[in-house]
Amino acid sequence: MIVIMNPDATMRDKSAVIARAEDLGFKVHLSEGKERTIIGIIGNDRVINREQIERMTGVERVVPILKPFKLASREFKASDTTFPLGNHTIGGGEIVIMAGPCSVESRSQIIETAIACKEAGAHVLRGGAFKPRTSPYAFQGLGEEGLKYLAEAREATGMPIVTEVMEPGLVPLVCEYADILQIGARNMQNYALLHAAGESQYPVLLKRGMSSLIEEWLMCAEYILSHGNTRVMLCERGIRTFETYTRNTFDINAIPVAKQLSHLPVVADPSHATGKWEYVAAAAKASVAAGADGIIIEVHPRPDEAMSDGAQSLKPEKFARLVREMKAIAQAVGREVNP
Amino acid sequence: MIVIMNPDATMRDKSAVIARAEDLGFKVHLSEGKERTIIGIIGNDRVINREQIERMTGVERVVPILKPFKLASREFKASDTTFPLGNHTIGGGEIVIMAGPCSVESRSQIIETAIACKEAGAHVLRGGAFKPRTSPYAFQGLGEEGLKYLAEAREATGMPIVTEVMEPGLVPLVCEYADILQIGARNMQNYALLHAAGESQYPVLLKRGMSSLIEEWLMCAEYILSHGNTRVMLCERGIRTFETYTRNTFDINAIPVAKQLSHLPVVADPSHATGKWEYVAAAAKASVAAGADGIIIEVHPRPDEAMSDGAQSLKPEKFARLVREMKAIAQAVGREVNP
Amino acid sequence: MIVIMNPDATMRDKSAVIARAEDLGFKVHLSEGKERTIIGIIGNDRVINREQIERMTGVERVVPILKPFKLASREFKASDTTFPLGNHTIGGGEIVIMAGPCSVESRSQIIETAIACKEAGAHVLRGGAFKPRTSPYAFQGLGEEGLKYLAEAREATGMPIVTEVMEPGLVPLVCEYADILQIGARNMQNYALLHAAGESQYPVLLKRGMSSLIEEWLMCAEYILSHGNTRVMLCERGIRTFETYTRNTFDINAIPVAKQLSHLPVVADPSHATGKWEYVAAAAKASVAAGADGIIIEVHPRPDEAMSDGAQSLKPEKFARLVREMKAIAQAVGREVNP
Amino acid sequence: MIVIMNPDATMRDKSAVIARAEDLGFKVHLSEGKERTIIGIIGNDRVINREQIERMTGVERVVPILKPFKLASREFKASDTTFPLGNHTIGGGEIVIMAGPCSVESRSQIIETAIACKEAGAHVLRGGAFKPRTSPYAFQGLGEEGLKYLAEAREATGMPIVTEVMEPGLVPLVCEYADILQIGARNMQNYALLHAAGESQYPVLLKRGMSSLIEEWLMCAEYILSHGNTRVMLCERGIRTFETYTRNTFDINAIPVAKQLSHLPVVADPSHATGKWEYVAAAAKASVAAGADGIIIEVHPRPDEAMSDGAQSLKPEKFARLVREMKAIAQAVGREVNP
Repeated sequence: MIVIMNPDATMRDKSAVIARAEDLGFKVHLSEGKERTIIGIIGNDRVINREQIERMTGVERVVPILKPFKLASREFKASDTTFPLGNHTIGGGEIVIMAGPCSVESRSQIIETAIACKEAGAHVLRGGAFKPRTSPYAFQGLGEEGLKYLAEAREATGMPIVTEVMEPGLVPLVCEYADILQIGARNMQNYALLHAAGESQYPVLLKRGMSSLIEEWLMCAEYILSHGNTRVMLCERGIRTFETYTRNTFDINAIPVAKQLSHLPVVADPSHATGKWEYVAAAAKASVAAGADGIIIEVHPRPDEAMSDGAQSLKPEKFARLVREMKAIAQAVGREVNP
Repeated sequence: MIVIMNPDATMRDKSAVIARAEDLGFKVHLSEGKERTIIGIIGNDRVINREQIERMTGVERVVPILKPFKLASREFKASDTTFPLGNHTIGGGEIVIMAGPCSVESRSQIIETAIACKEAGAHVLRGGAFKPRTSPYAFQGLGEEGLKYLAEAREATGMPIVTEVMEPGLVPLVCEYADILQIGARNMQNYALLHAAGESQYPVLLKRGMSSLIEEWLMCAEYILSHGNTRVMLCERGIRTFETYTRNTFDINAIPVAKQLSHLPVVADPSHATGKWEYVAAAAKASVAAGADGIIIEVHPRPDEAMSDGAQSLKPEKFARLVREMKAIAQAVGREVNP
Repeated sequence: MIVIMNPDATMRDKSAVIARAEDLGFKVHLSEGKERTIIGIIGNDRVINREQIERMTGVERVVPILKPFKLASREFKASDTTFPLGNHTIGGGEIVIMAGPCSVESRSQIIETAIACKEAGAHVLRGGAFKPRTSPYAFQGLGEEGLKYLAEAREATGMPIVTEVMEPGLVPLVCEYADILQIGARNMQNYALLHAAGESQYPVLLKRGMSSLIEEWLMCAEYILSHGNTRVMLCERGIRTFETYTRNTFDINAIPVAKQLSHLPVVADPSHATGKWEYVAAAAKASVAAGADGIIIEVHPRPDEAMSDGAQSLKPEKFARLVREMKAIAQAVGREVNP
Repeated sequence: MIVIMNPDATMRDKSAVIARAEDLGFKVHLSEGKERTIIGIIGNDRVINREQIERMTGVERVVPILKPFKLASREFKASDTTFPLGNHTIGGGEIVIMAGPCSVESRSQIIETAIACKEAGAHVLRGGAFKPRTSPYAFQGLGEEGLKYLAEAREATGMPIVTEVMEPGLVPLVCEYADILQIGARNMQNYALLHAAGESQYPVLLKRGMSSLIEEWLMCAEYILSHGNTRVMLCERGIRTFETYTRNTFDINAIPVAKQLSHLPVVADPSHATGKWEYVAAAAKASVAAGADGIIIEVHPRPDEAMSDGAQSLKPEKFARLVREMKAIAQAVGREVNP
């Protein structure tokens, strides 16, 4: 940790900072320049309360040296984390494709869609039983009934299921039916939920919050990892910016950045990242080219009747074509989309 | 709802939109211009699933006419909502001042701070017992013990207590001790929590999410109001932007906008909105001038020892001076800060 | 144009809006709903001053129906615009690769880099002679001397030259040496410069401003097109968001969106879009997969001696490898990178 | 400058960084921690090309110690800069009020408005003769004719004139008529214009770019100051964020921040910062409370006929009332609005 002192900081101010650091058990180096004095606090600065130091008299700024996350970092684990999802493996050479409707709307809808997705080349089935909706008057999902239909769709297709869980209290229920827990963008910093998902030991798909820094996203992965649950997938789903023509701005840079900073697999969600079906294929192909380990896409047989997210859902035939295109790009970058 | 058709939409596409709207029980008006055809769907468009219409063939864009929130709107209730907080009333001529530490750290710390805040002119005591922290390794709050100390501080000062609740399952516990439930920025769209807070019938301080539109914030208030809980305060606490010199960007415009769109009281949080104690006074005074009904400020007797948010906490003497300054501005805008 | 009236607008307010529209020569349709009255103004709403209508008593909101740009739109011209750049053609099946250093630093540096870029597969040479620098104390470019060296590098390699012009008064000078005018992100809305570039009739590479809406970017293209200069390339180079780990956030969505809204070729600039050389390859490959017509990349033989943008410059050997990778992806999406 | 090395940087990498710094004439301090090695480069780091160091092998990150601006900083000049504008002084105890229409539309319009503004309490007349417009089809201003009318309005009222200049080539012309040069948000980083404005030695009102960091804004002031022109006013006019309900987000924090970092006067522009006349008064009052030295407001006698910015213009009577309110707040914060 580097402490930069104000130009008008007194000798007394500097001594106080040094004393504080030494009291905390750190070695200190003082460097007096012409315009600024700098105090280097040498050691694991993750454990120092940075704001306390910032608030000391005469301190201009504090610069941490270490990244705040540890278990999620490449330094902690250099090799890519891989783990199986059904018959496929995420985080290695394979690109895993997850697809399905935004919401489970009925037994027949989810089974029909699951079969179509499977035939088109999907590996994992997505579908929401509990839905976070901006309006209290909108469809909130079928709840446990939806989970049961998802399980039936798994029976019918063999695909493992990823579904969102929105409350810590519901983690056990969702774990009864699902294979992978999804933590949505709005809940990325719902720490009680992160704890519960960590303790479940189920694989977790952790969506990036819509205004989260990459570092904050990795800190949320750290919450889950700190419970000994190592099967965490990071999911970039677009961030909120001033551009409103698309629903979100797809931060494609986040894919190589997250792969560099962390050993965890990175999944891209082109449906939310664009919000309009017309752009989903371009964003999905870009994700594969940029190094994503998985892709999650909303598919609905009749998007104009979808109870949620119809505007960004692909019809099964468009999705099938997209899988073929992603396969070609995967090969071009030395990876594969398996059948 | 206005449906704008693509220039190349066919007669068949238009008929399908019209048929859909009529099936839903709406009257429809068709207007064929030279460059675009417009279909007006007349009536309460809050109940139409906009995305389904957007996804119909030939549709370029859908423009809702009505605001999505209702109970929170000025149209629903023209007069300002007011309600008592201890001996004071929020939403009327009075400006209510809430103050206290970010976290409850110990019995003596909260009681000492509460007394200092009260003497300086505060009306409500704030303090966190459950803390949302970006790091799993940081201090997470004292939990129920903290709530007990808060209750003691209330005994000592007579001030009602506002404290954050982070999980729906903890609402009953927090209600045992607190007078006002705070829903934090990270949880603004934690819908299960909004439901629980709504059902509690306790006054709620609803912070705006750091990347939430004003409309989305009002929709979250709507969630609470829809449970018959009318004592909701909106709290602007800064939004996330590209500017990093301050912790957040204080959206001061949100104060007059929220007052115009809604009848609910609006509170400003200059501590989080700036993130640095040096700017808190300027932001607090600006809030009063802009029409805020309440101000919530972090105060700590020794900020450089605070376990959280030290950098943005005022010392009691600075806070006392600020209260005097806010009083002068309140008078200048025809309002009052009562003793 | 749709005018939505306030719920408390009077008959007189509505009549005034109708009268104003009719005075401007428009037909009007009045639709009185239960909660809102809507006035449809039928015709070319590009010529109405929207703010005047918004400011009329009783008006809540005005919604334009038509996009504000015309010449740049797909509606005006359905087929892709293509034009030659040296021996290559942009906007068709080919992907055009532009490469070179951020700044021209010396005669030998630009010639060495040009030859290396050419050998690696570049089609157009980039290099800045006039540099917009955030600090008045930083290197501002070699000026006309730099242009002369660029011309020599063209001689040596046969590649056409793209270089930035920063002032309308310098357009004639830059046109003496360059083949393509670049308008930088900071100057996207420098209207005098857009006029001068339009009048020059030279091909223009128009970078998107760092906080520009896609619509505003297309309006700036419209400025150039309105002078009869049809050879405009749109260049997405990243936007400014809250994320600071990368220099900018690459708005990859903008590629398919701009291709859908406009007939103009779209170029991606992965160097500025990421700001760090480590991520340039991922972003470049993603751009090709997403449908870009051209890629512009900063290459420097010794990035740690570059006078500007060293951090985001590739060494020639890394660039050569990237060209091969882009070629493979181009094939996967049915396009080609020609030698 | 602090150079943080990668955990896997070699001894050779570290030596290369040290050698580079020593070659540049700097003293160096090496600090080897358990997880990171840090190299401190001691001295004026403004003159080091940071990107070159960042690009050296084994470097993880470079942290500058000094702020990049110097002449604009409080360290360079501790006392507030003040200078006269007509009969008033900006930067001291007085709050200077600038008002007038967005555009000069006709001789009678500007004279009528000037008289009304003067009577209402304005000190400086604003009005645009050259207008930056997003559409090439919109009114672009009266040009020199507009400047002449402004000069007549000055004759009629005695108020000095502030007007925008958009091109370096037009600085001499604008200086013939105007008293203060305005540099608009879109041109904040038009460096040729900053140079010309600096050389003119006229007072400059420098608007913050809509996506500019406070530091970048001060760097642009530095450009002007570096020409020996010390009469620079910083103008906060709102930044672009995800919130679209208002035209811009008023970054009120920027007022105390700019006052702390710099000795230059700070002006607020509540008209652009909100974009809707209903919110202008709240934002203006907040600006005075937050410490602004001046306020610039758009006033038009008939906003629904204004050729630009009608939606955010106040009528003279509303403006007169606002001046009275600002006067009361100025007194509450120990300042004054003089007649």
